[in-house]
Amino acid sequence: MPASKATESATPSLPADDFKAIFRGHPGGVSLITADAGDGPVALTATSVASISVDPPLLVFSISALSSAAKVLTRATTVVVHSLDAQDIDVAKLGATSGIDRFAQKQTWSRLSTGEPVFDGVRAWVRCEVIERVQAGASTVFVARALQSQIERDSELGQPGNGLVYHNRTWHGLGEHSRLDS
Amino acid sequence: MPASKATESATPSLPADDFKAIFRGHPGGVSLITADAGDGPVALTATSVASISVDPPLLVFSISALSSAAKVLTRATTVVVHSLDAQDIDVAKLGATSGIDRFAQKQTWSRLSTGEPVFDGVRAWVRCEVIERVQAGASTVFVARALQSQIERDSELGQPGNGLVYHNRTWHGLGEHSRLDS
Repeated sequence: MPASKATESATPSLPADDFKAIFRGHPGGVSLITADAGDGPVALTATSVASISVDPPLLVFSISALSSAAKVLTRATTVVVHSLDAQDIDVAKLGATSGIDRFAQKQTWSRLSTGEPVFDGVRAWVRCEVIERVQAGASTVFVARALQSQIERDSELGQPGNGLVYHNRTWHGLGEHSRLDS
Repeated sequence: MPASKATESATPSLPADDFKAIFRGHPGGVSLITADAGDGPVALTATSVASISVDPPLLVFSISALSSAAKVLTRATTVVVHSLDAQDIDVAKLGATSGIDRFAQKQTWSRLSTGEPVFDGVRAWVRCEVIERVQAGASTVFVARALQSQIERDSELGQPGNGLVYHNRTWHGLGEHSRLDS
């Protein structure tokens, strides 16, 4: 095969440590994703949630196969994506801590009429139908369609909904103190 | 069809305004994505970039079909994802402004030996091979494998690489002032 036909597929991948360094310093908005495929609720904290389309209303997120919630999310037809703010840091930490029962505190969560577990009092949540799962390495990328939502705090309505971000292994809160220009 | 067989697909989607309100308040780390499929460079600012796997090193992002860069990104086999920090706000704004030539300032960018356009001096960039494109509504979700990277500023190395975030239609900078706990 002539050199000019060589494809990028032949190019070695970036070493893991270099890749981790890029994303350690890349901020991510924080979400808690919950689901129940019929055999009990699962929850996990994710920084990969992003809106991809407004009409239809679609969002994307990814889950590592190593996550304790991965198997349930492979089967669940619906999920609840909770968009967290700085007031929700305890919920964010709960979904990021391994080896605990994330539903042990029964007063912190309830069930929607459709059955999905939802954590109460967080900034906002959106119930979604999973419409696509794409395997990518040891992870799955989910595309989901938004069905129903509730917003508890919205800074556009004058409520102090200050964003929660994970960056350089640290939780950060957004607000007037972090604005770069007006 | 019995009611119990009704699928979520029959459930109406969330109204666009409700969906926008959820994500207006959801913080996103800021990236600039560049590519050249052979007929000139394109660049756009995105808040949807996320790491999905370390081995192989994979990331995901999405692009609206309405973006001026969408057509080129449909054909490009490689892209450069620039992970921006607060010092890079001018680059972030450049890629978010419509109707301008984003490559007019020739001293701000160069080409890698492999041909892709890269903006100089930003916090970090990673050159990737596009390995999957998934159509979702009016957008495309890209899965890309990391090939090569460069980090200019890394707070773990003591360099002040303060994160750049977009939230509630405003740019925010992360740092000691935004840390929630130590």
